[in-house]
Amino acid sequence: MSIQQSIKPLRGFRDYMPEDLLAREKIISCIKKVYESYGFAPMATPGLEYKETLLSSGGEEINKQIYSFIDKEGNEVGLRFDLTVPLSRVVAQYTDLPMPFKRYQIQPVWRFDKPDPGRFREFIQFDIDTVGANEMIADVEIILAMYDSLIALSLTNFRIRFSSRKILNSLITCAGIPLDKSLSIFKVIDKLEKQGLEAVKQELGSGRIDSSGAEIKGLNLDELQIKRIMDFLLLPQGTRDEAIASATEFFKGVPKSEEGLRELKEISEYLDAFEIPKEKVVIDLSIARGLDYYTGPVYEAILLEAREFGVVLAGGRYDQLIKRPTGEKLPATGASIGIDRLFAALKKCTQVESKSSVADVLVTVMLKEKMVEYLKISHRLRKEGINTELYIGTEKRIGKQLEYADRHSIPIAVIIGSDEFSNNQITIKDLRLIKKEKIETVEHGDYLKARIGQKTVQSENLIEEIKQFLQESR
Amino acid sequence: MSIQQSIKPLRGFRDYMPEDLLAREKIISCIKKVYESYGFAPMATPGLEYKETLLSSGGEEINKQIYSFIDKEGNEVGLRFDLTVPLSRVVAQYTDLPMPFKRYQIQPVWRFDKPDPGRFREFIQFDIDTVGANEMIADVEIILAMYDSLIALSLTNFRIRFSSRKILNSLITCAGIPLDKSLSIFKVIDKLEKQGLEAVKQELGSGRIDSSGAEIKGLNLDELQIKRIMDFLLLPQGTRDEAIASATEFFKGVPKSEEGLRELKEISEYLDAFEIPKEKVVIDLSIARGLDYYTGPVYEAILLEAREFGVVLAGGRYDQLIKRPTGEKLPATGASIGIDRLFAALKKCTQVESKSSVADVLVTVMLKEKMVEYLKISHRLRKEGINTELYIGTEKRIGKQLEYADRHSIPIAVIIGSDEFSNNQITIKDLRLIKKEKIETVEHGDYLKARIGQKTVQSENLIEEIKQFLQESR
Repeated sequence: MSIQQSIKPLRGFRDYMPEDLLAREKIISCIKKVYESYGFAPMATPGLEYKETLLSSGGEEINKQIYSFIDKEGNEVGLRFDLTVPLSRVVAQYTDLPMPFKRYQIQPVWRFDKPDPGRFREFIQFDIDTVGANEMIADVEIILAMYDSLIALSLTNFRIRFSSRKILNSLITCAGIPLDKSLSIFKVIDKLEKQGLEAVKQELGSGRIDSSGAEIKGLNLDELQIKRIMDFLLLPQGTRDEAIASATEFFKGVPKSEEGLRELKEISEYLDAFEIPKEKVVIDLSIARGLDYYTGPVYEAILLEAREFGVVLAGGRYDQLIKRPTGEKLPATGASIGIDRLFAALKKCTQVESKSSVADVLVTVMLKEKMVEYLKISHRLRKEGINTELYIGTEKRIGKQLEYADRHSIPIAVIIGSDEFSNNQITIKDLRLIKKEKIETVEHGDYLKARIGQKTVQSENLIEEIKQFLQESR
Repeated sequence: MSIQQSIKPLRGFRDYMPEDLLAREKIISCIKKVYESYGFAPMATPGLEYKETLLSSGGEEINKQIYSFIDKEGNEVGLRFDLTVPLSRVVAQYTDLPMPFKRYQIQPVWRFDKPDPGRFREFIQFDIDTVGANEMIADVEIILAMYDSLIALSLTNFRIRFSSRKILNSLITCAGIPLDKSLSIFKVIDKLEKQGLEAVKQELGSGRIDSSGAEIKGLNLDELQIKRIMDFLLLPQGTRDEAIASATEFFKGVPKSEEGLRELKEISEYLDAFEIPKEKVVIDLSIARGLDYYTGPVYEAILLEAREFGVVLAGGRYDQLIKRPTGEKLPATGASIGIDRLFAALKKCTQVESKSSVADVLVTVMLKEKMVEYLKISHRLRKEGINTELYIGTEKRIGKQLEYADRHSIPIAVIIGSDEFSNNQITIKDLRLIKKEKIETVEHGDYLKARIGQKTVQSENLIEEIKQFLQESR
């Protein structure tokens, strides 16, 4: 292995340097606060599980993506690829958990997937799930929590779409297609947004050639079946009420179709109780959501200014997945956020603040022999809640130290030279202002010469003055 | 594989259910705040790295503990076993990082170790390190940050001990022992606290039989060498100044011994500038710290009320480990906390608050048909910053719902029945008080009948009244 390789992360893996990690943490804590306001409590599970546990949820595609190996004790083990499987294991194991069990979980998952920009082999999932609640109110809570989260992230231009897996099941019945074909049909319908109606039609029929010239096999449905599906996909569905009316009309006389319709109605009525703009939470009858295990309502969110990132938040009800050793099945519903993708999408919407330092102040060092004094001043600031870095690097020149502060986006520098020491004074420099004004000297790297945003104050007023500096937004 | 196995985590792994996770999160955020106050910024690296990267730091024992395997692309990969190796990789890779680079990192690590109570195969490490700073001030900052963290955790009964690896090197020189034996000697000296002086003496000599009857081989030093080491370990070392005086006397005339002494003196003088009780930060000349790569100051912290958990926080300077591709070595110093062990130790010191819910209020559901009203009230509370869970389970009986609240330690329940609805009133129940007073009815599981801590208020006063309830500490 070359040296080049071993100083890099593996392909599809990435480091989070302070600037990005601080921004990602902010997103996470924002959403966490919302989820906690609904009473979801945190849980964490191990990164490694028995491979058997991971395989139990089925889904061939995912199974191929599991990082698995034999451990030194001879167990077949694997890295978790999602947080739903560990949740199922936990609920099966802790039989005395009071129900409903509402938990959130923020942990990395690993998938041996094809790496893409924005698609990693290790990424943080942020899941909320309610286990043990049958009623639609549980699904409504998930949708509301999704909505509140997006608002909390200062997003305005997003859309939450929901439907029910049962609606698509009715479509299969209504089109006279055997039920065992439904998953493959759902996967084609799932492509509607990305590939368009014509591509879906072809894939339901004899297949098509994609833009790269590759052949995509069709499902070979007959014309009548395809027409039925096309009619469904073209149903007018503006507001939630309109969508429900369309679907009701469409499914008239189709056995068991009331169930899905009732779910949509119930959810919609609960949502009506809130002052949520109608266009922000809509019904989209064509939503399938890839995962095999959904049984009822499904929901997803997209950012309208960053559509290319696709769905940033999605979930649904899965009443058949969680099974206790007794055979008892527990209903569950929940949503998942791929934090790294959301982060990338938010960056595009310029919603992510860039800050590469946690320090508010850099205390520079002009006189090495006064180090104890600098240390004491740093500590005085810290005790006041001001994050303070004392310069402990090798640069002796103050200009270079200010450059260091600027590279770390530390807004304020504190300078105490011999004059200041003898006058019991301290000089404060606002580096943001220097940068904003693009002082000529700064462009030459000489922050020291820029007199702008600089103030020399009595030592006893330091805290007060710095707090004032920090409050002034640049 | 039996079903029994697959619903459990792997041996040496554990789930964190809400109660424990909330407590652990609190510990982490406490320490994080302190570290950020010193200007340390967060960083994160992938769980998987090239095995080559992980092996590069040497240390046979650790290498055996790496979870490694060949991935689907044929790379030899491994799960990280610490956070120092990834840090070294990052500093080697990002050659334009402004120095010094001060980072903290909180991530799980994996070691195939013998599981013990309190020792796991996956555990969270919380590291701070300063890379690129030669001066002792960098080590002092780490010690101060350790001290501040323990204080922030409301601990009072702890001790931070420090020394320098150079002191023990001087001991080796002074005892006339070849330097290549030093690591094995340090490992024996490391056992002083746990095994006592006599055991150390025997292991330096011809070996001993331990309490389980097993033979521990000795290093076979000669009598004079052993005596020199014993004399050293018996040096009087009360205050920092006394320890330095003892060591200065002991090493008189030993070549290069001034270096280690100078380090101790310098650190001690910086610490003198702070109002830190002398007995809380002491010099302990016998500290070796297991890791091979330490080159200068080493430091560790123990909780005096939970000594059996050993060292909960430790670190040191390692100036030879971090190497750029150019061959340039970067000085570094830092400390690591095993969060799961610290958590276990804090539990013993009863410093860990137990809270299994994030919700402050449970809104119970008496009349299903009024669900929209309950939902609205829940939302009203959330908007006021009160974490509120709406009961969405299957229990219709209010008593059972209150039991649910109690099991989750939700302090306040809100009850609105038909009477309340018609009078625009709401009943609030303080479950903590019921529990505290051990109301007889409660012991029979009937929280509803307990009239204590109960108040019926006008709907418009709800927020105010609940805030007041929450403020009243039970």
